[in-house]
Amino acid sequence: MSIYLSKNEQARFLGRHILSIADFTPEDIHIVFKLAGYFEDYVKNRIQMDLMKGLILATLFFEPSTRTRLSFETGMLRLGGSVINATGTSSSLEKGESFQDMGKVVSRFADVMVLRHPLESSIHQFAEGSSVPVINAGNGSNEHPTQALLDLYSIWHGRVQTKNLKIGFVGDLKFGRAAHSITKLLGLYKTHFYFISHPTLRMPPEITKQVKAQGCKVTETENLADTIKDLDVLYVTRVQKERFTDLSTYEAVKSCYRIDPQMMKKANLSLSLLHPLPRLDEIAVEVDKDPRARYFEQVTNGVAIRMALLALVSGRLAEPAGEKTIGF
Amino acid sequence: MSIYLSKNEQARFLGRHILSIADFTPEDIHIVFKLAGYFEDYVKNRIQMDLMKGLILATLFFEPSTRTRLSFETGMLRLGGSVINATGTSSSLEKGESFQDMGKVVSRFADVMVLRHPLESSIHQFAEGSSVPVINAGNGSNEHPTQALLDLYSIWHGRVQTKNLKIGFVGDLKFGRAAHSITKLLGLYKTHFYFISHPTLRMPPEITKQVKAQGCKVTETENLADTIKDLDVLYVTRVQKERFTDLSTYEAVKSCYRIDPQMMKKANLSLSLLHPLPRLDEIAVEVDKDPRARYFEQVTNGVAIRMALLALVSGRLAEPAGEKTIGF
Amino acid sequence: MSIYLSKNEQARFLGRHILSIADFTPEDIHIVFKLAGYFEDYVKNRIQMDLMKGLILATLFFEPSTRTRLSFETGMLRLGGSVINATGTSSSLEKGESFQDMGKVVSRFADVMVLRHPLESSIHQFAEGSSVPVINAGNGSNEHPTQALLDLYSIWHGRVQTKNLKIGFVGDLKFGRAAHSITKLLGLYKTHFYFISHPTLRMPPEITKQVKAQGCKVTETENLADTIKDLDVLYVTRVQKERFTDLSTYEAVKSCYRIDPQMMKKANLSLSLLHPLPRLDEIAVEVDKDPRARYFEQVTNGVAIRMALLALVSGRLAEPAGEKTIGF
Repeated sequence: MSIYLSKNEQARFLGRHILSIADFTPEDIHIVFKLAGYFEDYVKNRIQMDLMKGLILATLFFEPSTRTRLSFETGMLRLGGSVINATGTSSSLEKGESFQDMGKVVSRFADVMVLRHPLESSIHQFAEGSSVPVINAGNGSNEHPTQALLDLYSIWHGRVQTKNLKIGFVGDLKFGRAAHSITKLLGLYKTHFYFISHPTLRMPPEITKQVKAQGCKVTETENLADTIKDLDVLYVTRVQKERFTDLSTYEAVKSCYRIDPQMMKKANLSLSLLHPLPRLDEIAVEVDKDPRARYFEQVTNGVAIRMALLALVSGRLAEPAGEKTIGF
Repeated sequence: MSIYLSKNEQARFLGRHILSIADFTPEDIHIVFKLAGYFEDYVKNRIQMDLMKGLILATLFFEPSTRTRLSFETGMLRLGGSVINATGTSSSLEKGESFQDMGKVVSRFADVMVLRHPLESSIHQFAEGSSVPVINAGNGSNEHPTQALLDLYSIWHGRVQTKNLKIGFVGDLKFGRAAHSITKLLGLYKTHFYFISHPTLRMPPEITKQVKAQGCKVTETENLADTIKDLDVLYVTRVQKERFTDLSTYEAVKSCYRIDPQMMKKANLSLSLLHPLPRLDEIAVEVDKDPRARYFEQVTNGVAIRMALLALVSGRLAEPAGEKTIGF
Repeated sequence: MSIYLSKNEQARFLGRHILSIADFTPEDIHIVFKLAGYFEDYVKNRIQMDLMKGLILATLFFEPSTRTRLSFETGMLRLGGSVINATGTSSSLEKGESFQDMGKVVSRFADVMVLRHPLESSIHQFAEGSSVPVINAGNGSNEHPTQALLDLYSIWHGRVQTKNLKIGFVGDLKFGRAAHSITKLLGLYKTHFYFISHPTLRMPPEITKQVKAQGCKVTETENLADTIKDLDVLYVTRVQKERFTDLSTYEAVKSCYRIDPQMMKKANLSLSLLHPLPRLDEIAVEVDKDPRARYFEQVTNGVAIRMALLALVSGRLAEPAGEKTIGF
């Protein structure tokens, strides 16, 4: 098997920073997903490539996120590259160094860098200083573009750039960053959204307004049981106890939106059930056996998406001569 | 040099979780030690193999144990594989994720996993979720099977499946997990045990009873100086100050069981002196030069044992066709 | 391109511990810099070698210093080797293990080791126990030999063993370890030193006396603006607020010694502006564009210097037969 990237496709990503999902055109997304589809087989079959042999990824995580970090590191290793890592606190930041300087310094060690830092401005300043491509792995509550891409990839599930998709979001739609990001991203594709939540946890009206303006349909409801039969995809998020002032409302919301085998009986046979993980009890463990449960596949998809981005920005797919097979 | 593993020997370990030493039959131990003996030369000569090239080990240490972690990681690197690591706390466990889910997720990143977690049930739940082999690197005070195997390997020191071995244990026999595990393991081999300790730190009677029932001899004594001459092996463990209510008893016990050149003069010329390390002053530094001091060799043996287990469970030794040379 | 190391040059470093800059003869420095000059191209062009393939570096950092650690790890990876790492605290040291024992144990895992520990005696005891070469990455306020070497390498900037160099040090000369180390090192080369500082932060008189005794010239001044025109090299260090009892003096010193484009106009066109980093506002960001600003190059030089040391002590350049090309 081999896939082709045109000179133009290669040039879009070579040396590029991946900071915000807002920078991605539908064409960009198409390229990333084409490549991720190719890498997915390598991840599933646990095969190492030589594509990034000799290159070093620096993962800098100044906020805990073991899983995202391991996903990037596994991706880099499967591509044949190496990893250096800094986790926890940065003694030089504590001494007052700027993110620009940190970017300048660490890009002398690594060939591509991944940063997670709670400060929203961190990633932009860091990328400004860096002499190598930088990927945002989460800057506070702001952006986490590789999560958004892997969610979209999982939602489409091989169905390239699906229009008129019926997708439900259930759980905490008010505060859930992941749900906000994908909703905005799906706004480009004439999606029919079903926002299913308790009144206190509804999708923020500015997001609803935005996707409507883009020509999407929006159905808001409190009733999951009646809605699930209409959905192609159901994206479940965790409801946090801290959002509620009284515990009985919390318990009611939890039990009402819990996905268990009963609930799955009401759903379409072709439903995709997704969840950003970690999962607590908003999805019953018995549902894991259901072929429509695809939340653990999202983990594999995340590795494939990150491999695609690492390879694209590093230019290991960019050969000077026009159309070519990916060289491995 | 090359060694052979039969189809049957390979099949015993392929894809298997290494959770408890109680799961090991004498045949299993024989296979692991045969392979470890082979790898020992590679560790000592610092030679890298290609046996696990392209495979990823995830080391997950949610309790401090730098040494055990480095031992596994060195083993994986010497086998030609790569390592991803998470140490400290797990933000997803803290959010309430189950160990099963964690196993499901991280096994999408890695090809073999090593977990250390203080909770006894952690390893079983984690392995249940995992789609790849899991090795227990210590679950609380319960089990640490690779430590038990490396101790047994060091005790036998090339003498395959020694019967009627005379082994002394000295120090804290009441609380020392390592001493308990090896005692149980040696119970299978008609061992003559000498349990040498202060009365307050004696081997728990249920263990003594168990090995007697298996046909072993047990000698309990407070006197090391008179006993050491009879021993093939002396396994020394640290006595912790916190176990004593009065300091003078502690000091007396310490000095009475201290291994120094004088004490070594009383011992057999073929004695093996072992210690799980770290060592404080229960063995004098001058003893290190004595060829019978073999506690630092245990470190090397630990790498070899872990390499054997990594290679066995990953199936890199398991070729479809019958008897074969290990392929490297 | 290839360089030659004689049998004698190789033998000087094979298996050697790198603990103190005081152990380096001018000939040693010459060898290290020759090799670093060679590796510099590989670092800049981000090319991996096979020189240390199959060897393992252990980085043990018991005091925060992400940057130094990443520099060593990048160097090892560019040389084709692998890395194992322990950061933070050591549970075995906490249990009371000696540094000698730690050296004995970890050298069973790795082929070369780098230690950073705040205790001054740590590195010597650790190296004493180790069966493989050990490199000091900082033992408290005492020594950090690879920093001194990279600074000297950056000061000379390809000018091999420069005599009569005019170098200024500005900032905190009283407490700055880096400035002390390079001053001592440059004492061997008939240097003309300009120590520019506030009276409370002057270079310690014993160092001034020492370099004078070695035949160096020393000019002490508070005035940077008048001095900068005479300098070949200006080494800037950070002035810490905590050194001052009143804030207004601190602010005055800071502004007076700040390097900005105005100040650079007064300087020689061939000046090298250096800084150990992290930099706060003692050098204005606008100066970064000035070709004389060479502080970020120091980061690259640091990787090259560490690669040279790793390769030299590991003997991967030491072939039995006389003069030879470095084998890669």
